[in-house]
Amino acid sequence: MILPQHINKITMVGAGNVAWHLAKGLSLKGYKIVQVWSRTIESASELAQRVNAEPAEDLDSLTPETDLFIISVSDSAITDVVSQFNHSGSLIVHTSGSVSMNELAGRSNSFGVFYPLQTFSKYIPVNLAEVPFCIEASGNKELGLIREVAQSLSSNVHEINSEDRLLLHLSAVFASNYSNFMYMLASDILDSRGLSFDLLKPLVAETAHKVITSAPSRVQTGPAKRGDLNTIDKHIKLLASMPEYAEIYRLLADKIRQRFHS
Amino acid sequence: MILPQHINKITMVGAGNVAWHLAKGLSLKGYKIVQVWSRTIESASELAQRVNAEPAEDLDSLTPETDLFIISVSDSAITDVVSQFNHSGSLIVHTSGSVSMNELAGRSNSFGVFYPLQTFSKYIPVNLAEVPFCIEASGNKELGLIREVAQSLSSNVHEINSEDRLLLHLSAVFASNYSNFMYMLASDILDSRGLSFDLLKPLVAETAHKVITSAPSRVQTGPAKRGDLNTIDKHIKLLASMPEYAEIYRLLADKIRQRFHS
Repeated sequence: MILPQHINKITMVGAGNVAWHLAKGLSLKGYKIVQVWSRTIESASELAQRVNAEPAEDLDSLTPETDLFIISVSDSAITDVVSQFNHSGSLIVHTSGSVSMNELAGRSNSFGVFYPLQTFSKYIPVNLAEVPFCIEASGNKELGLIREVAQSLSSNVHEINSEDRLLLHLSAVFASNYSNFMYMLASDILDSRGLSFDLLKPLVAETAHKVITSAPSRVQTGPAKRGDLNTIDKHIKLLASMPEYAEIYRLLADKIRQRFHS
Repeated sequence: MILPQHINKITMVGAGNVAWHLAKGLSLKGYKIVQVWSRTIESASELAQRVNAEPAEDLDSLTPETDLFIISVSDSAITDVVSQFNHSGSLIVHTSGSVSMNELAGRSNSFGVFYPLQTFSKYIPVNLAEVPFCIEASGNKELGLIREVAQSLSSNVHEINSEDRLLLHLSAVFASNYSNFMYMLASDILDSRGLSFDLLKPLVAETAHKVITSAPSRVQTGPAKRGDLNTIDKHIKLLASMPEYAEIYRLLADKIRQRFHS
């Protein structure tokens, strides 16, 4: 196989949250999205329509007339999808934070990773220009092509190997999935007495703003940080009817106290 | 005692994170900060100097020539401070989220609560205009005075009773202290392999932005939400040398899965 000089035509394999934002972003930057495949033809069609591409009914029907296949399915589906993949001469990347690049090794001689480190929800716009793209490739030529595509979307492109990328993905779970879960718990607690989550929005914004301009360990506040056992006790009593939440509260209060008071 | 028509002169009892921002904000709005007391004369002096007030060496030396005493010490110190307080004829408020208004009842006939629902760090500026102020008072006259002061600082003023305020404070621990702790864990994990927390900043910003414009349960993402046990397992293995973090990871992954998959 001869790799192209530049990437022009891109095929999206997957139409979930990440594929959705990438396809739209790449299309806006002038890339031709050739086809979109998804587990269901409905979701393939929905995304394909938005980026002037053809929906593909099954993996066999993907044309080799493309410069880059972006496999953007859930982590657990990557192995299954690539095992059905018949484009051994093409450049293939996946977009996962947690799957090693070498999962693609058997499928093609040209492969890599194109991982946007961001939380994506289909219908919520994201400014891709600020998203860190973590790239990795099987060779220099591939890396150059992948970097070019990433840099067309974002000024924040990093070459990161599979091991570091998994660590980054793990840290992202804490920083995003788990912090959002903390917001959910807060929202549930307020709901239990008819109070609005709106009351907490300035606090959520400020908490995030502080770690972005300072550092998380410098701006930790609260009863556990202060070692205020009396307040911690009141809070846990208040959670008597929500024992699952009390368990989380207690564990995190303990860990914060250990971190700041031992 | 006759309450004033309006509050003009204010005494700050405490000079910690909250007192610091309130004193500066009130001073900017034209209130005269008369005196600042703190557990140490150094911190009283530091804040007093910034708001053209007198530092007070001890609680006995606070002048009754003031319209409002704002007790802004740590929750666990409130009881101790008010027990030494000799201004039974004055309007007294505290700024705590978790202490009942009635803790002040024995000390004066005019009392209330002036709780700014925000995370404050001394040297990090906060836009008070957007901070929700939760107020409560022993009577209508007191409530009017406290509301006037709160409204001079913020357009986001709410009358909230002590019971709801404690619940709000509990929810704020999840939304702010615990989400910040998640950022800390992420930062520690990255540090362990020399990766920079800067990589996560767009993610932190977007996660907070999403819950502010949408709702936390609608925008939850990640392996636990997807029920992706394989990725969860990889992450936990990666935390083998940090068992405390693995414990937190595991509990939160379980709770998210229960929440979305049961």
